Amino acid sequence: MVIRIALLGAGRIGKVHAKAVSAADGARLVAVADAFAEAAETLAAGYGASVRTIDEIAAADDVDAVVICTPTTTHADLIEQFARAGKAVFCEKPIDLSLDRVKSCLKTVEELGATLMIGFNRRFDPHFKAVRDAIDAGRIGDVEMVQITSRDPGAPPPSYVQTSGGIFRDMTIHDFDMARFLLGEEVATVYATGSVLIDPEIGKLGDYDSAMVVMTTASGKQCSISNSRRATYGYDQRIEVHGSMGAVSAENVRPVSIELATREGYTRPPLHDFFMTRYLDAYAAEISAFVETIGSGKAPSPSGEDGLKALALAEAALKSIAERRAVGMDEI
Amino acid sequence: MVIRIALLGAGRIGKVHAKAVSAADGARLVAVADAFAEAAETLAAGYGASVRTIDEIAAADDVDAVVICTPTTTHADLIEQFARAGKAVFCEKPIDLSLDRVKSCLKTVEELGATLMIGFNRRFDPHFKAVRDAIDAGRIGDVEMVQITSRDPGAPPPSYVQTSGGIFRDMTIHDFDMARFLLGEEVATVYATGSVLIDPEIGKLGDYDSAMVVMTTASGKQCSISNSRRATYGYDQRIEVHGSMGAVSAENVRPVSIELATREGYTRPPLHDFFMTRYLDAYAAEISAFVETIGSGKAPSPSGEDGLKALALAEAALKSIAERRAVGMDEI
Amino acid sequence: MVIRIALLGAGRIGKVHAKAVSAADGARLVAVADAFAEAAETLAAGYGASVRTIDEIAAADDVDAVVICTPTTTHADLIEQFARAGKAVFCEKPIDLSLDRVKSCLKTVEELGATLMIGFNRRFDPHFKAVRDAIDAGRIGDVEMVQITSRDPGAPPPSYVQTSGGIFRDMTIHDFDMARFLLGEEVATVYATGSVLIDPEIGKLGDYDSAMVVMTTASGKQCSISNSRRATYGYDQRIEVHGSMGAVSAENVRPVSIELATREGYTRPPLHDFFMTRYLDAYAAEISAFVETIGSGKAPSPSGEDGLKALALAEAALKSIAERRAVGMDEI
Amino acid sequence: MVIRIALLGAGRIGKVHAKAVSAADGARLVAVADAFAEAAETLAAGYGASVRTIDEIAAADDVDAVVICTPTTTHADLIEQFARAGKAVFCEKPIDLSLDRVKSCLKTVEELGATLMIGFNRRFDPHFKAVRDAIDAGRIGDVEMVQITSRDPGAPPPSYVQTSGGIFRDMTIHDFDMARFLLGEEVATVYATGSVLIDPEIGKLGDYDSAMVVMTTASGKQCSISNSRRATYGYDQRIEVHGSMGAVSAENVRPVSIELATREGYTRPPLHDFFMTRYLDAYAAEISAFVETIGSGKAPSPSGEDGLKALALAEAALKSIAERRAVGMDEI
Repeated sequence: MVIRIALLGAGRIGKVHAKAVSAADGARLVAVADAFAEAAETLAAGYGASVRTIDEIAAADDVDAVVICTPTTTHADLIEQFARAGKAVFCEKPIDLSLDRVKSCLKTVEELGATLMIGFNRRFDPHFKAVRDAIDAGRIGDVEMVQITSRDPGAPPPSYVQTSGGIFRDMTIHDFDMARFLLGEEVATVYATGSVLIDPEIGKLGDYDSAMVVMTTASGKQCSISNSRRATYGYDQRIEVHGSMGAVSAENVRPVSIELATREGYTRPPLHDFFMTRYLDAYAAEISAFVETIGSGKAPSPSGEDGLKALALAEAALKSIAERRAVGMDEI
Repeated sequence: MVIRIALLGAGRIGKVHAKAVSAADGARLVAVADAFAEAAETLAAGYGASVRTIDEIAAADDVDAVVICTPTTTHADLIEQFARAGKAVFCEKPIDLSLDRVKSCLKTVEELGATLMIGFNRRFDPHFKAVRDAIDAGRIGDVEMVQITSRDPGAPPPSYVQTSGGIFRDMTIHDFDMARFLLGEEVATVYATGSVLIDPEIGKLGDYDSAMVVMTTASGKQCSISNSRRATYGYDQRIEVHGSMGAVSAENVRPVSIELATREGYTRPPLHDFFMTRYLDAYAAEISAFVETIGSGKAPSPSGEDGLKALALAEAALKSIAERRAVGMDEI
Repeated sequence: MVIRIALLGAGRIGKVHAKAVSAADGARLVAVADAFAEAAETLAAGYGASVRTIDEIAAADDVDAVVICTPTTTHADLIEQFARAGKAVFCEKPIDLSLDRVKSCLKTVEELGATLMIGFNRRFDPHFKAVRDAIDAGRIGDVEMVQITSRDPGAPPPSYVQTSGGIFRDMTIHDFDMARFLLGEEVATVYATGSVLIDPEIGKLGDYDSAMVVMTTASGKQCSISNSRRATYGYDQRIEVHGSMGAVSAENVRPVSIELATREGYTRPPLHDFFMTRYLDAYAAEISAFVETIGSGKAPSPSGEDGLKALALAEAALKSIAERRAVGMDEI
Repeated sequence: MVIRIALLGAGRIGKVHAKAVSAADGARLVAVADAFAEAAETLAAGYGASVRTIDEIAAADDVDAVVICTPTTTHADLIEQFARAGKAVFCEKPIDLSLDRVKSCLKTVEELGATLMIGFNRRFDPHFKAVRDAIDAGRIGDVEMVQITSRDPGAPPPSYVQTSGGIFRDMTIHDFDMARFLLGEEVATVYATGSVLIDPEIGKLGDYDSAMVVMTTASGKQCSISNSRRATYGYDQRIEVHGSMGAVSAENVRPVSIELATREGYTRPPLHDFFMTRYLDAYAAEISAFVETIGSGKAPSPSGEDGLKALALAEAALKSIAERRAVGMDEI
């Protein structure tokens, strides 16, 4: 059986997912929708898919599932529309910037018994997944401490943070999900600090460009996150997990494995400069997992609930900064 | 313009090339030929190509180029047949195990003015290519010494070496080509040693499973190769180039970037266990380069001449072992 | 001129300092005092020094300086006694567990114009010092974020924390000093979490064995510390500093540089299992710096004030845990 | 019992050994001899030793052993003189540049039953020793291939090679000894190439500044050596041993463990720029081993025989270059 997939949104991330669908065993891209007809047509042509409207796709008999890559503000509505239409839904994070809207959306999905998977792609990164596998295999005993370092190559234009929900909702949210993925236990308290060290314009908009977070679980596990909007040396993505019997870490994945030795020392090239090249394999594995989930009876993972919880951690971080204290997740 | 490509040979390496053709910009797989009809059909179906005989492909108007992945013994004949048919030809190495046959084949190709590219895929590995780029950029000054470490995960069945031409012609040949690629100057002398340390059956067939080679150029550049048919830790592929102003090296490419720390120490997983996973990117880049060459007026590289020269180095290595002395390339 | 030094305390750390004095240019160990006569005698004999009482040393004409390695409870009194006696004083950290006692002691030292240096040895570690030097050389621009990972090979007996002042005063205190050393700006707020994950007995005594700390400065610089009393893989000591133009880090220093590759992967041996072997060079450099300071007119560094400030950060961390909020250093 | 040691030669390497004697348990430096009185006096003063003539030392009752650090041309005579005087002898390599003179010297030593240890310090390097230990522990199974990379930071003045015996006798000789140390089996054949790529003056004197060597043993083990007189990135000293069950390697030992990340990439500082800082621990361990050997009844190692064999390998290398063929050690 081949899963017939429609893509909603033919932008940057849409293109990545189209390629992932094409490469996934048992899946085929059959339709593309985008407000910009030309973008939709170009993308569709490359994969032998047809251009359709969103409503046409919702009504189509030859579409089993949709991959939602449209702007965030449309996510919740589209999830509900396609859940109602009986399609399996993969949606880029976040579901919405409002916790209440996310909750109402998930309630609808649950009532319909629909399949919804959220695009926390990093869980599918082979390196981070290997860290999780090592934990599951008992290699480090009980998890005690997680350290996540996550830095972007360069800060976005200040205007971006006006619609993104700010650093905690657009950037740290990936690390919040990774924290939950690695801790294996829900977060109980969140403490966060935010600074404006890179771009004062970001500060004027009430957001931060540098952040540190410390979280704890009920059993006393601890997790730190270190975020910066700008790392001159590239897209810095590392995780470490310390446990009772050892530790496991994922170093940065490097574009090339060469090293140059000169009078000045030993130099390796900078890291990836873009999240799409860094996480290319993760995007492919993510869509493969979505395809495998459909009709398998297995619960999709990451689920809508995972999307909700990561967003709640972002809310807690913002409250922590405002009140200069650790915020309990039971307060959110 | 789209280059229409036919694949000759639907075996293991044929599948890799079919995928590479499909992924290359400006190329399409239109036909597949294989002595085993089922293999041809399965592969063709996956790419919307048709199954045809070799002669049909040679006569076809809708085929611009062929990728030859058939057994070595057929290479030279097929190259000649398709060069005569006016198709651009990509052929897996080696052209033939006989230097004379290679020479006569290349003569035919030259007389016909045909396009022939040989599959020394490692030149297209992004890591090794980055080493070459660093040299070209003058980062290490003049090249003085090249060190190539090349070890397979496990020895082939002894029967394999009976048709492969032995370790120097089936394995070291890649390193001979890499040596030429990195030295930037033709090899003048070859000294080789061979031992049977892994599988006595290989020795009974007159071949070796462990080898070291030292080569020099006219200007005094030096190059060493270290080969083993078996490395328990995986497919070990490293190069180092030492020059007047520095050195540049390519470390092994690792399947995952994780490290586990325990009471026993810090452990990274083994290397790739298969040349196809290790060189996946190289195969794709190689076919892309072939496609770009066709009709561009640029000389194909690696050329048939490169194929000839690597084979001549293998001949010299065998002569060196037999005579326990350095063999001049002018003797071959 | 040779600085004549007396050692107070011939225990574990006293032996390390005796060796450092002996190796330092321009210094000689002339006297040793210890409550256990045998310990004093053995140590003195090894360096041609004499055994004396503390009062004899204070009164001696042939002693220029003392190195205090006695139990913490005696530090403040001894500092005052020898400052009054006109000797230069090097004292192991901490000066005292009570902030008030430290303040009164430093007041006495200041009034006497005495030389007092505190033993924060890690500032003298060649690797950590090289990080500081890179910052000073402008290699990473403005410091924005400091990450300190500091884990002991094994937890101390629970009884130890009863006199040590607990994890923040006996272990994290080194990291607090390192944070100040690297931030280049005083800490403004401290948030800390503490867990008992390793030894419940430590928890029964009101202390923690696992801790994370986040600190900020007035300008918005951020610093995280991750502490564990037990790392199976050895004494884990790493620092990272992220700045506006780059980052600089010090990896763990490894006892041996070997790596073993087998079917199971690539394994490097565990880290040092003891702070004294890990920081051997730091102890030597620290005493050399002390010797150079004496009579040079230069202010000793780390100073008594540095000792006070690190202790105040420990106080703030404890207050933060008790009140689950960020504590301002102006509150301490 | 304390071994009383006299030092012959107070030059650069003499100073290193004096410090090593002083640091060794159970040893004391009692006398120093040097043609330059001032050098002897300065060195002796630092350790409370007396300055004496060579003959006085040979006749002295209070000297148990000598450490010979004088010019190479004096080594054999001094070894014989002190062997006759009943002193244990440690001598820097080489014993002599003439194989015949080495043989006659060793014959004398043997007839006298004297203790003679040769200064192949690298066997005592903790990192290289750990490689040997891993082999002995069976971690890599049977040794199959050894690869030694050994490069100096900078070429010596051409005049040096006139007295040193040339690159194979002054530099590669260490690698020849390391090859024997790691192979665990005597070398059967030697093939060498030499080039002049760095300093034409070295070539005019009949020597080489760049060399590669391949050696085999009777059982088929293989070993390569790569030497250069100049590596801009520092003193490059690496070994790799590949065996039937795995491989073990020693990476370069780095002066500092820091890494700088910037827009240009990740840079670690250059290597040590001097053999004495690189091998400081090795020199200390070597003298400790000598001290422990004296009076223990254990055979000294490396022995005079080891010195002879390394020199014979250098002879074979030169013969190989001259005759462009593999030279059997039975020919030397």
